Amino acid sequence: MAFYLQKQGHEVGLMDIDICGPSIPKIMGMEGEQLHQTSLGWEPVYVEDNLAVVSIGFLLNEPNQAIIWRGPKKNTMIKQFLKDVYWNKLDYLVIDTPPGTSDEHLSIVQYLKQTQPEGAIIVTTPQEISLLDVRKEITFCKKVGLPVLGVIENMSIFICPKCKTETKIFPPTTGGAIKMCQEMEVPYLGSIPLDPLIARSCDQGKCYVTEFPNSLASQAYNKIFKDLINKIQPQDPKSQ
Amino acid sequence: MAFYLQKQGHEVGLMDIDICGPSIPKIMGMEGEQLHQTSLGWEPVYVEDNLAVVSIGFLLNEPNQAIIWRGPKKNTMIKQFLKDVYWNKLDYLVIDTPPGTSDEHLSIVQYLKQTQPEGAIIVTTPQEISLLDVRKEITFCKKVGLPVLGVIENMSIFICPKCKTETKIFPPTTGGAIKMCQEMEVPYLGSIPLDPLIARSCDQGKCYVTEFPNSLASQAYNKIFKDLINKIQPQDPKSQ
Repeated sequence: MAFYLQKQGHEVGLMDIDICGPSIPKIMGMEGEQLHQTSLGWEPVYVEDNLAVVSIGFLLNEPNQAIIWRGPKKNTMIKQFLKDVYWNKLDYLVIDTPPGTSDEHLSIVQYLKQTQPEGAIIVTTPQEISLLDVRKEITFCKKVGLPVLGVIENMSIFICPKCKTETKIFPPTTGGAIKMCQEMEVPYLGSIPLDPLIARSCDQGKCYVTEFPNSLASQAYNKIFKDLINKIQPQDPKSQ
Repeated sequence: MAFYLQKQGHEVGLMDIDICGPSIPKIMGMEGEQLHQTSLGWEPVYVEDNLAVVSIGFLLNEPNQAIIWRGPKKNTMIKQFLKDVYWNKLDYLVIDTPPGTSDEHLSIVQYLKQTQPEGAIIVTTPQEISLLDVRKEITFCKKVGLPVLGVIENMSIFICPKCKTETKIFPPTTGGAIKMCQEMEVPYLGSIPLDPLIARSCDQGKCYVTEFPNSLASQAYNKIFKDLINKIQPQDPKSQ
């Protein structure tokens, strides 16, 4: 999402509030980078001129280090990310949360209440065991008054690279994300097929959609993100 | 693991301390069951005569309900599970945690310190993005003095049901769990192939290994669990 917005020419900030398992530095290819203190505040790490990233991963001395923190300490860190980072001008701030409905989620919603965030994008896989958690996350959003922009179904099908047979690796035993979205009355945004090159791109810190623009999954990502942007900002001056 | 031990004739307790995303009731086929208060304490839900389960999922009024709790409240719940559940005699207590190194993990380690738990079993997938988190979890175990019984690599390969081609869906770009275990000096327990029937069994609340005993994944599970039990209790009187 952040990559997509950045490629559209927007000024994008990406904030990783998964304190105990920050993966954004790796995915963005910026592992080993550090946040720097300036007179204006913490300076984020720039992936591109118009894509700036903040993550606790940039504060670790070595990548295996564990952040063994209870909730209150995590909340303080999130507050600091919001208060003390000097972002320059931003068109979009994308926030990556861990799964669940606990401290990180309560804190970010509470701290951002005044700014009226556009909403939450929720990712699931097709099987019921994932949807079970996602339903709770949607209930959370409704309770705290955060709009649900929609649900993306990830890892929907796998196409054998040899014989092209489609397999539903995580079977949608209760109807998958589409049916769940109908039941919970939230928008269904689309499905992404499972492509081993996605995991590989993440590991290599590369943007899968740029690397493999013609893949089925890239086409799905692009459609989903395009629809989302139109939904958030139908009158965006830059796209006119 | 709990199913395996139960089938060996042991008295097994299974405690789900994923407070915000409890999936054990669903996986065990016991959704909709309730914990009951007795004069001796909370009575767990019995899946079999010798397999008793405790989860916050058994305290919810409806399955979509979100537990929107910060750390301290989660910690109180975990303490109650440990103090107030009347388990009868147990040979093994298996505890399922959420991923990470936060409140749940600190609390359970702290509360069980006196009982000297056998150790932690850690599950990963092969790609670096997962191993990154798992390394942190291993560092956590070492810091708090909890032995790491070993690491299981899940979703290692997928075999196309039509042409039998093997695909590494989550590619082990840095050598997978085996190499990580060597580097971190913890035991590698084995790999489980990705089988859509595993997710289906979980969704249906059935034991995959019982349903599909001859599958590659069942064979892998059985070998891993057998080795683990031998490791934990080489002189188990029941198995002699």
